[in-house]
Amino acid sequence: MPSLLPQHPTIAVVGAGAVGGYYGARLAQHGHDVHFLMRSEYEHVRAHGLDITSPHGNFTLSPVQAHNSPAGMPQADLVFVTLKTTSSELYEPLIRPLLKEKTAIFSLQNGLGSDEELARLFGAERILGGLGFVCINRTGPGRIHHITEGLIRLGEFVDPGDGPRAQQIVEMLRAAKIRCELLPNLLQGRWQKLVWNIPFNGLGAMLEMNTQQILSTERGREVVRALMLDVLAAARSEGVTFPQPAEEIIEHHLTRTKGMGAYQTSMQIDRQEGRPMEIEAIVGEPLRRAKRAGIATPVLEGLYRFLKVVSPES
Amino acid sequence: MPSLLPQHPTIAVVGAGAVGGYYGARLAQHGHDVHFLMRSEYEHVRAHGLDITSPHGNFTLSPVQAHNSPAGMPQADLVFVTLKTTSSELYEPLIRPLLKEKTAIFSLQNGLGSDEELARLFGAERILGGLGFVCINRTGPGRIHHITEGLIRLGEFVDPGDGPRAQQIVEMLRAAKIRCELLPNLLQGRWQKLVWNIPFNGLGAMLEMNTQQILSTERGREVVRALMLDVLAAARSEGVTFPQPAEEIIEHHLTRTKGMGAYQTSMQIDRQEGRPMEIEAIVGEPLRRAKRAGIATPVLEGLYRFLKVVSPES
Repeated sequence: MPSLLPQHPTIAVVGAGAVGGYYGARLAQHGHDVHFLMRSEYEHVRAHGLDITSPHGNFTLSPVQAHNSPAGMPQADLVFVTLKTTSSELYEPLIRPLLKEKTAIFSLQNGLGSDEELARLFGAERILGGLGFVCINRTGPGRIHHITEGLIRLGEFVDPGDGPRAQQIVEMLRAAKIRCELLPNLLQGRWQKLVWNIPFNGLGAMLEMNTQQILSTERGREVVRALMLDVLAAARSEGVTFPQPAEEIIEHHLTRTKGMGAYQTSMQIDRQEGRPMEIEAIVGEPLRRAKRAGIATPVLEGLYRFLKVVSPES
Repeated sequence: MPSLLPQHPTIAVVGAGAVGGYYGARLAQHGHDVHFLMRSEYEHVRAHGLDITSPHGNFTLSPVQAHNSPAGMPQADLVFVTLKTTSSELYEPLIRPLLKEKTAIFSLQNGLGSDEELARLFGAERILGGLGFVCINRTGPGRIHHITEGLIRLGEFVDPGDGPRAQQIVEMLRAAKIRCELLPNLLQGRWQKLVWNIPFNGLGAMLEMNTQQILSTERGREVVRALMLDVLAAARSEGVTFPQPAEEIIEHHLTRTKGMGAYQTSMQIDRQEGRPMEIEAIVGEPLRRAKRAGIATPVLEGLYRFLKVVSPES
């Protein structure tokens, strides 16, 4: 059983971009001892703080306990990992120095693989994983725009996902005006999110089309359905199932996504801006798991094959 | 045996865009009776003629025997079809009125399927097919830029491809400064061109990448190779083979294409300009032929699936 956090935990946010910056700032605003590890915005945030615009109220966090290297940071009770999955080579050098014997590591990252990688490096008992359903953008140096309420779903990496430490973190986040819920089965939660993320991030980035363009034709909807069926099959290959029938899950996603209008996924925007795309976490790793289990997912395989031509390094 | 053309044939160019306009104008310049069926540029060309820029010498053809409907055109001895394959519904209304008993139909169109469709509609004996390896652009109303020499390879639809009528047409074209050669086996010629066209037109349009971007990584080269292998397998499924080993064909294409620099294929440009893309003739029909023969071409199949999302109507 993982140890509970102390009553006044020291929190480190590793990879404090828009998402990590927002949640870290909320925790700091509510009295927590939060340290931010950041790279490009370090100087600016050190001098000017973090400016938050949010439906929960705008505020400026200043001074910010900002760092540009883990060397000067205190060891933490909770490490909040919001690095992009394309930077997994940084887990060891950035996180290791922050760990005490019982430090918990909470990975709020996309796709599959980061929980396992962090568990391999630092021990499974430390790890919690989270899914962000959020819309938080950087609008300038040190400026973060929290657009809609959003939701974090989080759970322990080692079952049960909704153990006491996870409950404690949920309470801490809620007290800081962060909407969140417990995930009894983290792996199921990750696959559930992938049912949407694989088709829309994948096709969006590969074809340079937004959700509305993809769904505007029966042909597009067919390919989305075929990809979702492949993702559900890949999930089953890991023993992950869902209570609803596949058709119901899929139609629910299609209806909901139509309601979103012309939405560009993060991967499409990453492609447009020439940034690394999270292809491996979102598409590659799910495909590899199906393959290891001997499950054929031909549409998913095709997506991965062609997407890698767009961004072979990521 | 198809009949030879009369010594002074009446020629109709159906779908006189840049390619049809250039070749038709060259034939007219060299004394042939050429009628042009065109749509959007009809008024302009009727008033101002066709302006040709070419390494073989610039010239203006004026007046031009331009028509905007087959109704007012004379019946032809040779119908030169340069319609886009996405306009195949126009074969019947535009070509039928131009036919005499022995009229030959020469299809200079991309991909697979137009020869067969024309043969089905008008009789196999009439049909010749041609492959254009050309770089001819429209640069303005009635203005055509013939950039590089290029080559037309042509043959009879009914074997042998290099029969007397095909020879006669080759001579006629050569006399008008049009570089061309006989194709003993038209179907083999079409597949040979597809080995290049499927990967580079297909990936280029689907991924919005030029040839240089596609070939800049090992990942991209791998997918091009896999597609070329699928195309060669699809060709074999129709009994079409090549003397060189597959690896040699593929490496030759890769080397030659690298030498072309950052080339955008016609299908990529069609996508950018919002014009119909020749997906069915270049990708869909080759795939269907492999499927009918029970041959698996999974990479080609994936390409078609995703490309259709980009342009489902074409």
